[in-house]
Amino acid sequence: VNLIVLTRHELAASGHVILTGSRARHLREVLQVDPGRSVRLGVIDGPLGAGMVTDVTATTVTLSCTFETDVPERPRVDLLLALPRPKVLRRLWAQLAAIGVGRIILTNAERVERNYFDTHVLTPEVYRPLLIEGLQQARDTRVPPVSIHRRFKVLIEDELDTLCPQTMRIVADPSGTQRIGDVAATAPERLLLAVGPEGGWNRFELDLLDAHGFHRAGMGPRTLRTDTACIALLAMVHGSV
Amino acid sequence: VNLIVLTRHELAASGHVILTGSRARHLREVLQVDPGRSVRLGVIDGPLGAGMVTDVTATTVTLSCTFETDVPERPRVDLLLALPRPKVLRRLWAQLAAIGVGRIILTNAERVERNYFDTHVLTPEVYRPLLIEGLQQARDTRVPPVSIHRRFKVLIEDELDTLCPQTMRIVADPSGTQRIGDVAATAPERLLLAVGPEGGWNRFELDLLDAHGFHRAGMGPRTLRTDTACIALLAMVHGSV
Repeated sequence: VNLIVLTRHELAASGHVILTGSRARHLREVLQVDPGRSVRLGVIDGPLGAGMVTDVTATTVTLSCTFETDVPERPRVDLLLALPRPKVLRRLWAQLAAIGVGRIILTNAERVERNYFDTHVLTPEVYRPLLIEGLQQARDTRVPPVSIHRRFKVLIEDELDTLCPQTMRIVADPSGTQRIGDVAATAPERLLLAVGPEGGWNRFELDLLDAHGFHRAGMGPRTLRTDTACIALLAMVHGSV
Repeated sequence: VNLIVLTRHELAASGHVILTGSRARHLREVLQVDPGRSVRLGVIDGPLGAGMVTDVTATTVTLSCTFETDVPERPRVDLLLALPRPKVLRRLWAQLAAIGVGRIILTNAERVERNYFDTHVLTPEVYRPLLIEGLQQARDTRVPPVSIHRRFKVLIEDELDTLCPQTMRIVADPSGTQRIGDVAATAPERLLLAVGPEGGWNRFELDLLDAHGFHRAGMGPRTLRTDTACIALLAMVHGSV
């Protein structure tokens, strides 16, 4: 944990917060804080700041908090991802939040198995704590909004302009002749990256993405598992800024 | 599985191979091959090729193989990694082989817990099948050699020049002011990337790396878990070539 994360309603008007549970335990047992010690903290979807320890008991840690004036910027890349296997998605949530995505859009595709949509890994109760775990790792506070779209065509034709207005669009596909970093480097501001299912998008899906302004870009000759590919692609995009 | 992997001694002089076990099952049940069908294959540390199915029985699949003349090039990046937690390392093996590393050098560091060296995840019986799984994913045949070094100083001072001769050396560290992709883009040929433990290298370790020609390079303000960081860094290096 590189950051203690608070919700807005936990904070008293005085700027004090009394932590219990796992965060208090982490401060007491791992960081072994005493009064006077300062720890990094952040408010979910709010600013980063520092918390001065004012009191430690057997079950609580009290902090006096001060915050930066600005809220961290949303990462400039949004991710459009064909729904991966539940086991893979479970592993991905924290990693995506850590490496930094502005928004996560999960969609259907021909090569997505229908029962993937029934998993509890798609419920906020499961994914939100994992996203926050990733933010704590990366010292960020912006929880990426998540949306789930069972109808790919409706998503691309009707919903995407609202979800991600004014973004450069890139689809990762082996048919792409440009390198992903080179394409991303030309993005004026925000960027939407589409990553297909294991086995790739089918021809209809690629054509629809083409027709809606997605630039095809490759990442070399090696085929990667969805989770490895997502991290690698996001790293290349972030690294190109 | 994007590639059926053979060992050299499985191949008859005629170029035929009779597969049993999991590979035969995969061909029969997943790919549902019939005689006449061609599948991609590769010989471990040898060439890629194609196998024409000549016979299918309840337990075997026979292939007639032809191979390319060249063996795939070793990936140009070698990885020097402070030994991560066994659970993280277990997840990493296949991903490292898939994204492509020439060699994997595991080392000690102050912030590596001593008992990490006792795990069975460090035995070839465990990691070799996982490396081959990654190669099958990425359609490569070159198994990266793995070496384990409990003495960091001895490794850096006495062994590294032999293990990785004539490579550009980069250490990923938040103190690096240059971007990793920019540094990697200037590498003349091979490249050695050092990735520290959770919590980073200590000052002595960084100084020793400095003294032995490692360029410090950063990857931005976000702190990542070792496994995410390895994949992200390797992607940025590969993407910069």
